Amino acid sequence: MAVDSPVSPIRRALISVSDKTGIVEFASALHQRSVDILSTGGTYKLLIDNDIPATEISSYTGFPEMMDGRVKTLHPKVHGGILGRSGQDEAIMAEHGISPIDLVVVNLYPFEQTIAREDCDLPTAIENIDIGGPTMVRSAAKNHRDTTIVVNASDYARVLEEMDSNDNGVTAATRFDLAVQAFEHTAHYDGAIANYLGKRVHQSESDADQEFPRTFNTQFQKAQVMRYGENPHQKAAFYVEKNAPAGTIASAQQIQGKALSYNNIADTDAALECVKTFEEPACVIVKHANPCGVAVAETPLDAYDLAYATDPTSAFGGIIAFNRTLDAETAKAIIERQFVEVIIAPAVDTAAREIVASKKNVRLLECGTLPEKPAPFLDFKRVNGGLLVQDCDQFVTTHANMKVVTDRAPTEAELKDLLFAWKVGKFVKSNAIVYAKNNQTIGVGAGQMSRVYSAKIAGIKAADENLEVPGSVMASDAFFPFRDGIDAAAKAGVTAVIQPGGSMRDQEVIDAANEAGIAMVFTGVRHFRH
Amino acid sequence: MAVDSPVSPIRRALISVSDKTGIVEFASALHQRSVDILSTGGTYKLLIDNDIPATEISSYTGFPEMMDGRVKTLHPKVHGGILGRSGQDEAIMAEHGISPIDLVVVNLYPFEQTIAREDCDLPTAIENIDIGGPTMVRSAAKNHRDTTIVVNASDYARVLEEMDSNDNGVTAATRFDLAVQAFEHTAHYDGAIANYLGKRVHQSESDADQEFPRTFNTQFQKAQVMRYGENPHQKAAFYVEKNAPAGTIASAQQIQGKALSYNNIADTDAALECVKTFEEPACVIVKHANPCGVAVAETPLDAYDLAYATDPTSAFGGIIAFNRTLDAETAKAIIERQFVEVIIAPAVDTAAREIVASKKNVRLLECGTLPEKPAPFLDFKRVNGGLLVQDCDQFVTTHANMKVVTDRAPTEAELKDLLFAWKVGKFVKSNAIVYAKNNQTIGVGAGQMSRVYSAKIAGIKAADENLEVPGSVMASDAFFPFRDGIDAAAKAGVTAVIQPGGSMRDQEVIDAANEAGIAMVFTGVRHFRH
Repeated sequence: MAVDSPVSPIRRALISVSDKTGIVEFASALHQRSVDILSTGGTYKLLIDNDIPATEISSYTGFPEMMDGRVKTLHPKVHGGILGRSGQDEAIMAEHGISPIDLVVVNLYPFEQTIAREDCDLPTAIENIDIGGPTMVRSAAKNHRDTTIVVNASDYARVLEEMDSNDNGVTAATRFDLAVQAFEHTAHYDGAIANYLGKRVHQSESDADQEFPRTFNTQFQKAQVMRYGENPHQKAAFYVEKNAPAGTIASAQQIQGKALSYNNIADTDAALECVKTFEEPACVIVKHANPCGVAVAETPLDAYDLAYATDPTSAFGGIIAFNRTLDAETAKAIIERQFVEVIIAPAVDTAAREIVASKKNVRLLECGTLPEKPAPFLDFKRVNGGLLVQDCDQFVTTHANMKVVTDRAPTEAELKDLLFAWKVGKFVKSNAIVYAKNNQTIGVGAGQMSRVYSAKIAGIKAADENLEVPGSVMASDAFFPFRDGIDAAAKAGVTAVIQPGGSMRDQEVIDAANEAGIAMVFTGVRHFRH
Repeated sequence: MAVDSPVSPIRRALISVSDKTGIVEFASALHQRSVDILSTGGTYKLLIDNDIPATEISSYTGFPEMMDGRVKTLHPKVHGGILGRSGQDEAIMAEHGISPIDLVVVNLYPFEQTIAREDCDLPTAIENIDIGGPTMVRSAAKNHRDTTIVVNASDYARVLEEMDSNDNGVTAATRFDLAVQAFEHTAHYDGAIANYLGKRVHQSESDADQEFPRTFNTQFQKAQVMRYGENPHQKAAFYVEKNAPAGTIASAQQIQGKALSYNNIADTDAALECVKTFEEPACVIVKHANPCGVAVAETPLDAYDLAYATDPTSAFGGIIAFNRTLDAETAKAIIERQFVEVIIAPAVDTAAREIVASKKNVRLLECGTLPEKPAPFLDFKRVNGGLLVQDCDQFVTTHANMKVVTDRAPTEAELKDLLFAWKVGKFVKSNAIVYAKNNQTIGVGAGQMSRVYSAKIAGIKAADENLEVPGSVMASDAFFPFRDGIDAAAKAGVTAVIQPGGSMRDQEVIDAANEAGIAMVFTGVRHFRH
């Protein structure tokens, strides 16, 4: 068994790195530990320049580097040395003058950085596909019983420490761990190549879209294994991108509280993505994937009070997100008033931390400064046997995108509320109807199979919480197919409406608004979110 | 530019395949076209046994195969031959006796098949990690300007056809396409290795779960680029698994109609996964990701009529799924009655096809025989910067899992309706409440932030469609936190309830049921679906 092998000393290392961070120090430390060093090209030169003795790989193999470095290490004396099994292959190795290579330190030509450059063309990208490097990485990882493979500079110190504790050897557990890292590295590398090149092959004319490669290759890194998934009988884990963007649930730091559950993470993402769309201090409360209360105000505390008032029943056990530092007053208001699962904010001040600490189960998270303009990413929807992949929905509607279609234009106050309600509606499950007034949600109608029921629910919820609908505005995530939705809104006292427009019956819908004196704007953009 | 290279004839091929399908015929055809063949180990023997002249790679390199085949092709005479650039590297190649290799035919040790075997242990898996193969594949793919790489037996015929039309050459476009396939192949291969080995490294004790690897590597294959995604301003594509399971949207065949949209695929998946949970003829109508009508009956037609009656408004423009062959009567009833986006069934008989053909936009799909027991898969939920991964929710509740908790046990008819409603509730967005009677949904309350509103909506919808709630049963996807849900149900005339149980206030909820003479069963299993 691989992991049971004895720890044998490292006597010979092959070092060939594209990223030279820390390599001089590491090679020097190896040399001090009597390790012979084989090296190639630029790495060899760097070591020699730093007075670290090394043998160039070509003088070891007797074969020159050729073809501008395309062929350097692809030689049986190299790979026999990496792949040779102790206690098994000594005779054949001796016969062919192959020396065992116990440590391989290799990282690869920077393919991803290369293609990220604006001036990168296809031949440049292809020239930056490393062939020799991944082969050494894979050889060494396969033979981790005898060989140690290091692909990350961050592991240099760990290897040296192990050598110092194990008579210059590396333990089986570490060799195995490093071998897995090696395959993770090559899988990611070839995935990036396949994604890049796969955008350049087209099955048909209509398929000539550069965005979606022929195969879609992804690698995520495990951040947390949960006790369970969406339900207790489902196992689950949370994975994050290699460089998860700042200001997201994936890069947030938990300050206190129980471990985040599957549903916590999904809901916190929804709350945070929604709250970051507001410029003024805002609060979003999410329950079961839907905002159940949203408000914008002068302070986080006021925003929270207003958001909470929309639907206190649903806010119980909810997720609360802010786009400003969580202060003591706001923390106190939450903790004293309600059961809360998660609170997330860009930052949490010391006094607020102390207050939340009184409820040790509450999950308190800091997500760091929110980006001014969130980076686009690809959104997925899993189906049995497949994956729907799409651009995330980050379209931002401004006054410039709004077209007044009724006789009456919205007042300034209505306009403000319309934009507010529209931003909220984007995060409510479709069909979505949002009633809002004075930067506060008055009623949220979510997740219905027909639009008119979403409107009914928004109205019922407002009435149940004694919130006044008359004077509110209404946002609809998609167009009204018939005038009934507007008629019902008019009856409820709605004074202005924002919706995409685009129905065959838009005129009928506009007429209904005009008849009721409602001001209506079209955005031209739909925001389904299922 | 790579794709502009002239077509030069293939003179020398290197053939080394683990999967030997079609290789004798292909090699023989190459030989007939005067191609010199280099080969290794088992492939070489097979060719010689079939009287196809070939040179063993070891006699070409002058270096023997060694270490049980671990080192065969990792030699500069091989890789110089594959990577050499015409018009550039001839001199150095001549100097070292390197002949150009124009065609590389390689497929890899079957790592995935190996680890799928029950008796596969870690050393066996590791021994089945191919090193030489991926290196040749990657070398040839990098140098596709000069070299043709074939990793799939299904491309042998295509290569021969191109050679016959191009003086034994392969066009640049095909070389590029095959090179992309090559990197897709190695990305998938190393992804599978990283997933397998990554389940065997643990960051901590609590992480000692074998299910979730340290990195999660996936590869999906593009099936379709859509006009747009969930909304018109989002680009989207549909990807499927390499071997998508039968009876799913990913493997379904479209018989007629417009191309499936993003939302069509998502909703068809929901409808199909729901309908396949029923044994008797069933019909599920989905709108905006939720079942808006479900029924079980003696025939698909009766099931459709009953499902439609639940909510005709929402059924307009819906997705309709069956678990039986679509017959002419049912097709006629749908087409004459309503606007429908998608109809999917295991099969569609000829008469039904003719009827649907009268509406050429209707998307008609055949998904093939539904599996008796659907294969488990991993479900994903995307968040900004990360991915939640969990077991799909395939738990099946039977009578054996149901525990009667009230004084009165359900009657046989109620029991049947309870199981029916429970199956539907599993596919309704949470919080989910389903009213049902006689194997028909009476009201569906979906997607609310508090359970009591889902119950209200189910009741309102039933009333609006003149469906009688009295005598219905009620299913709830999660427990009732308070007795108010039961009290409301009792008032509406519900006679039996199915729910997971598990609330701190279960006794209060049971008391409420007993007071109303309601029969209630606990399943012990929750079915959140957000």
